[in-house]
Amino acid sequence: MSDTHPFDPLGPQEITKAAKVVQELLHGKSFNFRVITLKEPPKQEMIAFLEREHLEQPQVSRPTRIAYIQGIVRGDSGSNELTELLVDLDRCAVIQQEILVGKHSFIDSAYMKDVENACMADERVQNEIRKLRLPPGASVVVEPWAYATDGMNDMSERTSMCWFYMRLVDNADANYYAYPLDLCAEVSEHLKVTKVYHLPSSESERVHEEARPYDTCKVHSTAMSEYHPSLRPPPRTTTKPYQVVQPEGVSFKSHGNLLTWEKWTMRVGFNYREGLTLHDIRYDRRSLFYRLSLAEMFVPYGDPRAPFPRKAAFDLGNDGAGINANNLSLGCDCLGLIKYFDGWHNTCSGEPLKLPNIICCHEQDDGILWKHTNFRTGNAAVVRSRILVLQTIITVSNYEYIFAFHFGQDASIHYEVRATGILSTSPINIGDNVGYGTIVAPGVLAPYHQHLFSLRIDPAIDGVANSLQVEESHALPFDDPSVRNPFGVGYTTHSKIVTEEGGLDLDFNKNRTFKIINEAKVNPITGTPVGFKLVPCYSQLLLAHPESFHAKRSEYGSHAIWITRYNDEELFPAGKHTMQSLGGQGINSAIAQRRNNPDSKSTVRNEDIVIWHTFGSTHNPRIEDWPVMPSEKMVVALKPVNFFTGNPSLDVAVSNQEDNKSRLVEPESSTCCSPIQM
Amino acid sequence: MSDTHPFDPLGPQEITKAAKVVQELLHGKSFNFRVITLKEPPKQEMIAFLEREHLEQPQVSRPTRIAYIQGIVRGDSGSNELTELLVDLDRCAVIQQEILVGKHSFIDSAYMKDVENACMADERVQNEIRKLRLPPGASVVVEPWAYATDGMNDMSERTSMCWFYMRLVDNADANYYAYPLDLCAEVSEHLKVTKVYHLPSSESERVHEEARPYDTCKVHSTAMSEYHPSLRPPPRTTTKPYQVVQPEGVSFKSHGNLLTWEKWTMRVGFNYREGLTLHDIRYDRRSLFYRLSLAEMFVPYGDPRAPFPRKAAFDLGNDGAGINANNLSLGCDCLGLIKYFDGWHNTCSGEPLKLPNIICCHEQDDGILWKHTNFRTGNAAVVRSRILVLQTIITVSNYEYIFAFHFGQDASIHYEVRATGILSTSPINIGDNVGYGTIVAPGVLAPYHQHLFSLRIDPAIDGVANSLQVEESHALPFDDPSVRNPFGVGYTTHSKIVTEEGGLDLDFNKNRTFKIINEAKVNPITGTPVGFKLVPCYSQLLLAHPESFHAKRSEYGSHAIWITRYNDEELFPAGKHTMQSLGGQGINSAIAQRRNNPDSKSTVRNEDIVIWHTFGSTHNPRIEDWPVMPSEKMVVALKPVNFFTGNPSLDVAVSNQEDNKSRLVEPESSTCCSPIQM
Repeated sequence: MSDTHPFDPLGPQEITKAAKVVQELLHGKSFNFRVITLKEPPKQEMIAFLEREHLEQPQVSRPTRIAYIQGIVRGDSGSNELTELLVDLDRCAVIQQEILVGKHSFIDSAYMKDVENACMADERVQNEIRKLRLPPGASVVVEPWAYATDGMNDMSERTSMCWFYMRLVDNADANYYAYPLDLCAEVSEHLKVTKVYHLPSSESERVHEEARPYDTCKVHSTAMSEYHPSLRPPPRTTTKPYQVVQPEGVSFKSHGNLLTWEKWTMRVGFNYREGLTLHDIRYDRRSLFYRLSLAEMFVPYGDPRAPFPRKAAFDLGNDGAGINANNLSLGCDCLGLIKYFDGWHNTCSGEPLKLPNIICCHEQDDGILWKHTNFRTGNAAVVRSRILVLQTIITVSNYEYIFAFHFGQDASIHYEVRATGILSTSPINIGDNVGYGTIVAPGVLAPYHQHLFSLRIDPAIDGVANSLQVEESHALPFDDPSVRNPFGVGYTTHSKIVTEEGGLDLDFNKNRTFKIINEAKVNPITGTPVGFKLVPCYSQLLLAHPESFHAKRSEYGSHAIWITRYNDEELFPAGKHTMQSLGGQGINSAIAQRRNNPDSKSTVRNEDIVIWHTFGSTHNPRIEDWPVMPSEKMVVALKPVNFFTGNPSLDVAVSNQEDNKSRLVEPESSTCCSPIQM
Repeated sequence: MSDTHPFDPLGPQEITKAAKVVQELLHGKSFNFRVITLKEPPKQEMIAFLEREHLEQPQVSRPTRIAYIQGIVRGDSGSNELTELLVDLDRCAVIQQEILVGKHSFIDSAYMKDVENACMADERVQNEIRKLRLPPGASVVVEPWAYATDGMNDMSERTSMCWFYMRLVDNADANYYAYPLDLCAEVSEHLKVTKVYHLPSSESERVHEEARPYDTCKVHSTAMSEYHPSLRPPPRTTTKPYQVVQPEGVSFKSHGNLLTWEKWTMRVGFNYREGLTLHDIRYDRRSLFYRLSLAEMFVPYGDPRAPFPRKAAFDLGNDGAGINANNLSLGCDCLGLIKYFDGWHNTCSGEPLKLPNIICCHEQDDGILWKHTNFRTGNAAVVRSRILVLQTIITVSNYEYIFAFHFGQDASIHYEVRATGILSTSPINIGDNVGYGTIVAPGVLAPYHQHLFSLRIDPAIDGVANSLQVEESHALPFDDPSVRNPFGVGYTTHSKIVTEEGGLDLDFNKNRTFKIINEAKVNPITGTPVGFKLVPCYSQLLLAHPESFHAKRSEYGSHAIWITRYNDEELFPAGKHTMQSLGGQGINSAIAQRRNNPDSKSTVRNEDIVIWHTFGSTHNPRIEDWPVMPSEKMVVALKPVNFFTGNPSLDVAVSNQEDNKSRLVEPESSTCCSPIQM
C-alpha cells in the first residue's frame, strides 16, 4: 500500500475489502451497494502530509484509508433504508454507520429499468397507449426521470416520473425525442403505477384524463429528426482528415495519478459523483489549489404547467458525473497522443467495477501564447501555446456535457464546459405555441431551461490561509478639486477584502474582479499580495422564484460567487442528498447556520476558504440545437495576478518551423491565384 | 480585368495607374502618397451584382473600379495640405478631390523616424539627457507617439509626443520599455522640438524643468526584463514537438480572394486601415453578412497626470491594422497547412508595395462539435469540430493584437482577439506607488489602460432588410392570479424590436440577447423570423468622463451595441480622421445629425442596418504581463438562431480513428502505473 497516495481513489482491492467489512457487519442481510468510494482524508492531516511530501521528508504517518459506503438495506418491514457507513480500511472496521431517514440515494439505472418495465406492464398505461392510436410500426419508449420536488406529493417515498415517446423506425438508435407523446405516469418506490394522465399540449390545457389519438401531422420526416449515422443520408465528404502528430511523444508524465507537465504538478482524482477531481495543484513547486471540482449542476425547466415543474435535474447529486462518464475512444473524443485514466466503481453486490477511459489526458496547440515584433529591427519572437487537457464527458439521459480543465504554460487554468446532446422535448399541438419553449419539429416543443454549474475552487495560494479581494475600476472624479484629474481621463481601482461568508455577484460594468490572495505573501516587485484571479463566465442566475422548490433546493443558484470557510464535509452546494430534496441543505443554509451559531466562525479573511462559482446558460433552444445540439461552450479561468515576478511562460522556447513542420497549401490548380488580371 | 471581383482590393497595376492619374493632375507638385486603396462600390450596386452572381446570371454592368487616394501636398506656403481624391480607374480620371483642413493623416513611420532624429539632434534634449547621468554604456531610445488631444495645444498642427527609454545592453532587441526615463519632448509638424521637460515620477509630482540623475536602483537585472531569445537564458526543453498533418490537403479552396469551405463562401478583403475585411459571407448559398470588419480600436491610458492623458491611441484610425500587419511565418504564427494572402499598399511616391503573408488561412481541430450516446444502446455518435481560421496579427509600437475569424461547420462565426506584446511604461520613483498602475520592475510603472474594439457587423440575413430584436428571459410572476405559474418556476422571453438608431447595453442578468433578424422570412418550423444572434464579449465601457476629449473622440466607447442605418461612408465609429481629432465625428454624432435632420431617416426596422459591438478589456496590468504579455483572449460570436431548419452540422461525418489516427501514450517506463498496490 506504500505506493497509494492519500488522494488516490479506492482501487479494486480496496473496494472489495470495504464491501466485505460491510457484509460481515450485516450478517447476510441484503445490501444494495450504491457506492463505495474514498472518503478523502481530513485537510488538516493532508496539509502536514503534503508539506513533508514536497520537502521530500519521510512521512511520520499516513492518513487512514477510509471508504465511504452508501447502500440500501431492505428493512424487516420491507422498507428500503438508505444507509451510510465509513470503513477504516487499515483496520478493516466500520467506524461510522447511519440510517438516513427521508433521504434518497442517487438514480439507480437498474431500478429505473424496473420502473420502465413496471410502467409498460401496467394495464392502465397500455390502455392509454392503445387510445393514442399510434401509427403502424411505432413502438413506445418510456423515459423515467427523478421527481423534482414541487410540493404536490408526499416526499417520504421515491417517486419516478415516466415520460413517453415513440420510435417510428425499428432502430434502437432512432431519436425518440422527436416524437413526444402526451402521456405521463407516476411510479412509486415499490414499482406501482400510481397515476396515469395526459399532458397539456397547448398554452391553456391542463393535465387531463381523456386520451386524444396521436395527431398524424406530427409524423415528420426522419431527415429532420435523426442524428445517428445509421439513420442519416451519407455525410458531407468535404472535410479532409486532420491529424496531430507528436514525434517525440508527449510533454507530460504520469506516475499513477500524479501528473507532471510544464512546471505543473497535480493529482488526478475521480469519484462517482463529481467525476474528475484535481488535487494539490502546483506550478513550479508553488501551491495554487488544494482541490478543484465541479460540485453540482442543476437543470430546471421553465415550463410552468404541471407536471413540467417536476423536470429539474441535479445532474451531479441525482445522476453522478462519475458513473455517467463516457468510455472515451481514440480518434473520436480525443486527437493526438492520449493517456486515459480508468475509474473504479462497484456493482450493487459490492464488487469492483471498472469504468474504462473516463478521463483523457492530452496536449493541444492553442495558438499564439505571446509575440512581439520589434518595429525597429523587424525581429519577431513568437511563442506558441501548448495546453494540457484533462477531459471527461458525461451522458445524462438526453444531454451530454464535456468538461475539460486546460492548463497553460503561463500558469493559467481554464475550465471549459460544452453542452451538447439532445433537447428534452414535450408534446405540443400543431399550430400552437407557448411562451416558454421553441418548436423544433411539428408537434415537438423544446422547453426553455437553465443549466447552472457550480465550480468549487479550494485555493491554497502559497499556503492555506487565503482571502478574497474584490476589485473594481472606477473613473476618478472630474469635479472634485481634491482629486488630480484635470483632463477627466483618470481611473483607479477600488478594492475590498471580503470578511464574512456569503454570496457575491458579477458586474462587468465595473470590471469587478475576484482575486484570491494570500495577504501574508507580498510580491517583491509589485508590493501587493500574491494572488490568482477568477475570470468568471457571465451568466443569468436561477430564474425560479426564491420561494419555489427549485430555488430552495439549489441554493447556490442565487449568487455567482460564494465564499465559505473550508469544511471537510462541505463539497456540495445544493446539499449532499439532492434526490427529492426539500431545500434548506445547501450552501446558503450552511452559511446561515454558522452565522446564527455563536460557537461557529463565519469570518473568511486570512482563513482556509472555498470559492464557488455559479455559471451556466439560460438555454432557450434554437432549432439549430435540433436534433442534436452543436456544442455550447462556457469558460471560466483562473489566472495568476501578481503571483510570480513576471510572465511564467517567458522561458518557453520560441516557435520554429523545424519542430512545427507547417506547410504551404499547394497553389490552386485553377487558372488564377493572383488577385488582379487587368 | 474580367477576373477582378468588385470586392477585390486594388492590385499593383491598379495602384500604379491611380498614382499616375494623380501625378498627372498635380503637374509635378510633390505629393506624399499616404494611401491608395479600393473605394468599395456602393452597396446598392453591389446588391444587384451579387444577386446576379449567385444566380449565375451574366452581369449587365460592373461597378466602376475606384481608387481612394490620400496624400499630402506640400503647399506653396510650405504648409502640408491633406488631400483626398477618388480616381475612376476605368476612365483614368479624378472624380473627386478635396483638401481637408484641420485633419491629419494617419501615422507616417518615415516621418516618425524624422521626429526621433530631430529630437535626438536637439541641443536641449541632449543637455537634459546628460543631466540624467545614465549608467555607462546606456543608449537612449526615443519613441514618438501621436498626440492624443487633451485641449492643451493648438490642434491645427501635427504634434508628436516623444517618450524616452534606455537600452542597457548593446542589442537592438533589448527591451527598452524596462527602463523608462523621466524625460519628454514635444515635436512640431516641422520637426522642431517645442518643449522639453521631465515627467512626474510620483503620485504628487508634476512635470518639471529640473533633471534628476537616473536612479541606479532602477537598474534591475535583464533576467526580469528581457523577452528576446538572444537575451534570455536557454529556454525550457520540456515542450515536445506537436505537428498538424493533413494528408489529403486542406478542406478549403481559394480562387483569388474567393474562399469556399464546408458550405461557407466569402471574399477576403484587405485595406491599410481595417486590415482583414470579409465580404458577402454565405452559408449553404444563403446570405448572412454583407461585410465584417474590425472598425476601430481605442487604447486610452488611465494615468491622470499631465502629460499622460496624451497617451490614447486609435490603433486603426491613427496607425492602421493593415499597414501594421505582420508578415506571418510558417510554423511560428500558424500550424498545419497554410495559405497566405498578401496585401498591397503603396510607397510615398505611389508605387505598389507588397505586404507579404498578412493573412493566414488554415484549418484547426476545435474539439467536439456534437456528441450523443444513447444510454439504451451504449452507441455514441461523435463529430469533431473543424474550424476555418483567418488570422492577421498587427504590431502597434509596443503591443501586438492577433485578430482571427473562426468559421464553424455549425454556421457559427467566432471573432477572437488576443492582446499580447509589451506594456507601455513610465517612470516611477523606487518606493512610490500610484493608484493607476502596477509596478512591474524597479522604477517601472505599467499604467492602467483600456482596449476598446469596435466590430462592425453589416448583416444581410437572407437579404438586406434586417431588424435588431432584443430578447430577455424573465421569470413569470408568482403572485399574479392571471398568470399560470403555480410552482413559481416558469419563465418566458420578452422581446422588442429596435426602431430607432442608437446605443444599447448588455445585461447578462436578464440573459439579454441581440438577434439580427429578417422579419420577412419566417422559419417554417419555429414560426419565428430567421436570424443570427450576437454573443457579445462582456466588457467595461470607456471610463473617461463624457466631457473628456477621450470620450468625445471615441464615441462608440459609451455603449456596447450600436445600431445604425447603412451608409456607404460610415465605416469608422470614431470618425474617419482620428489623428488629433476633437470629437463630434463618431457614430453618436452621425446618429444625432440624422435624428435632428427632418430630411434624414433614423428608423432601423426592416432596413439596411449595421450593428457595431464595442468590447475589450480594462487592462490593469499584472506583473505576469511583463516583460511580454501572455495572450489575453476576447471572443465575440455570431450564431444562427432559428435561421435553418435544424443543426447545420448534422451532415458532418462522425469521427473515426482511421482518419484521425490518434495514439495511446506508451505506458510509463517507471515502476507502477496501477493506482493501487495494496
